[in-house]
Amino acid sequence: MRNAENLTVAVAGATGAVGREMLAVLAEREFPIGHLRALACGRSAGERVSCGEHEVSVEELNPESFAGVDIALFSAGSAISKEYGPIAAARGAVVIDNSSCFRMDEAVPLVVPEVNSDVVASEIAKRDDGEGFIIANPNCSTIQLVVVLNPIDKHAGLERVVVSTYQSVSGAGKKGMDELWDQTRGIFSQQTVEPKAFPHQIAFNCLPHIDVFEDDGYTKEETKVIKESRKILGLPELRITATAVRVPVFSCHSESVNIETRSKLSAQDARGLLMESPGIIVIDEPETGKYPLGCELAGTDATYVGRIREDASTANGLNMWIVADNLRKGAALNAVQIAEVVLDAWGRA
Amino acid sequence: MRNAENLTVAVAGATGAVGREMLAVLAEREFPIGHLRALACGRSAGERVSCGEHEVSVEELNPESFAGVDIALFSAGSAISKEYGPIAAARGAVVIDNSSCFRMDEAVPLVVPEVNSDVVASEIAKRDDGEGFIIANPNCSTIQLVVVLNPIDKHAGLERVVVSTYQSVSGAGKKGMDELWDQTRGIFSQQTVEPKAFPHQIAFNCLPHIDVFEDDGYTKEETKVIKESRKILGLPELRITATAVRVPVFSCHSESVNIETRSKLSAQDARGLLMESPGIIVIDEPETGKYPLGCELAGTDATYVGRIREDASTANGLNMWIVADNLRKGAALNAVQIAEVVLDAWGRA
Repeated sequence: MRNAENLTVAVAGATGAVGREMLAVLAEREFPIGHLRALACGRSAGERVSCGEHEVSVEELNPESFAGVDIALFSAGSAISKEYGPIAAARGAVVIDNSSCFRMDEAVPLVVPEVNSDVVASEIAKRDDGEGFIIANPNCSTIQLVVVLNPIDKHAGLERVVVSTYQSVSGAGKKGMDELWDQTRGIFSQQTVEPKAFPHQIAFNCLPHIDVFEDDGYTKEETKVIKESRKILGLPELRITATAVRVPVFSCHSESVNIETRSKLSAQDARGLLMESPGIIVIDEPETGKYPLGCELAGTDATYVGRIREDASTANGLNMWIVADNLRKGAALNAVQIAEVVLDAWGRA
Repeated sequence: MRNAENLTVAVAGATGAVGREMLAVLAEREFPIGHLRALACGRSAGERVSCGEHEVSVEELNPESFAGVDIALFSAGSAISKEYGPIAAARGAVVIDNSSCFRMDEAVPLVVPEVNSDVVASEIAKRDDGEGFIIANPNCSTIQLVVVLNPIDKHAGLERVVVSTYQSVSGAGKKGMDELWDQTRGIFSQQTVEPKAFPHQIAFNCLPHIDVFEDDGYTKEETKVIKESRKILGLPELRITATAVRVPVFSCHSESVNIETRSKLSAQDARGLLMESPGIIVIDEPETGKYPLGCELAGTDATYVGRIREDASTANGLNMWIVADNLRKGAALNAVQIAEVVLDAWGRA
């Protein structure tokens, strides 16, 4: 029996952009940590990190790191997750993994708590007390999208979805943010900063290329949005397409989303529905110039929706603009919310 | 009879971002200017501007400015166009107007030469020699879109189009470019630069708001893309919707475009078709990281298309990424190309 008031929590990748945000979110939400273990690969070991009252040294990640760990949050890249995720689960930890490597594994739940927290409860119900397993945290662009698509699907049925993203550089981690900053400053001082974190210049430029290209011409980022949305929403046949674009913005991903529903949903009804849906804040007052703006919403927790309007080009069409902080709801916060769902399920088990 | 080798050309708004580009494009393309008249409202009068071998002082715009003018290019805002456009036409000038004020007027041709240059010829054919009239230059986002939609419509029939734009600040003129520059520098030096040219911060931010809001929740920019595309393509019932977003980029508008066609058009066939279509350059080699990028294409004349791929969410779907310099093909160049069509029609009249 886990002691829910005295959990051992590990964060793998504790010094990265998402790892640091995970520690901050755990502290803010007063997650009941008895023991904290901060893990990273070699070069960050020894750094001090804090999480509320806990201040610990970062330990080098190794197979023994997970002995006695109840919950392990991973955000150290796919290779680390692939190697250490199953080891941590075998040692009894519930692994909440932010990488893409287990997301499409049929045996692994892919969870956005506002949408499908029930799959966590059923995973726990079917396992022995103390048994570990892996839960995947979805792609950042997918999370904010499905938080909004789910209530629309439940209410009016999704017919087809067309997404174009406006993704911030923080999705590429600290090196992405540094590159936008340095390249922009370089343009002011007439010095060239060669692209490293991104395939081409990102300062004052839009890049229609995130993650690697696949054979069908889509990027892996676009394919993630398509496939992960279907899995989380439980709609394996959902008609959805995506174009993923990196924009010269530090925080928050924005999305222009066109939705066709099975039954008619007016803009006003969509606004009312989304206002009452979990995790969503509607900011939609064009007459006073109010709509979600990434520059104002960085560091916040909700998924924001605005510019909700009917699309007359189809029978039951809607356009909208969805914004969320990709490091928080798009990564760290969603992972911690999954941990809270796990905790709750243990409490009820 | 106009003397096609010795035309009197007026540019109204000669000191603005588009006006200056018009002068540059007229010179580059060796438009046969006999006399150049640079016009602007009060505060710019007296400035010197040049166009090839012509260097002239900017004159204050007044009803007498258009006496003897053959072609008048207007880019001085809707109020000036509304007042002086009809005056110039009444004096015998063919007015090519970059503002939005005459575009949806049924009596006024709205022209993108690659798409519907024939309407210019028929306007000229039905008028007396020396008679003036107004031709409207479309919205920047519309021009690059219809250059690509037209061959697709001719080949496979357009069923429905969903556009999300990534528009540069130069669309808001010099004051828009200055604001992005000053706000960005302000962020580096920790000084706040209040929004003036844009409704909110544009530095490191995406703004889903261009031009004013209309009653149906669309911005006027979005409505322009929808209505102007229908008029230029000659498809009054075209099913098309748009979301227009300002991004922190100096030059070139980019567009993520989802297209449904009546008959099947494979990605490869679309690529071949667009490669052979006027005004289009296809840059589409994902395997070597090649696709159109605004930062590389500023100052060029074509409409660039890449990321062409089939959209499996619908029977005959395509996604693509369209980029053009909004001050050139999106404004000045298209206006000068219209002037060339006029010249050609006069030559054949």
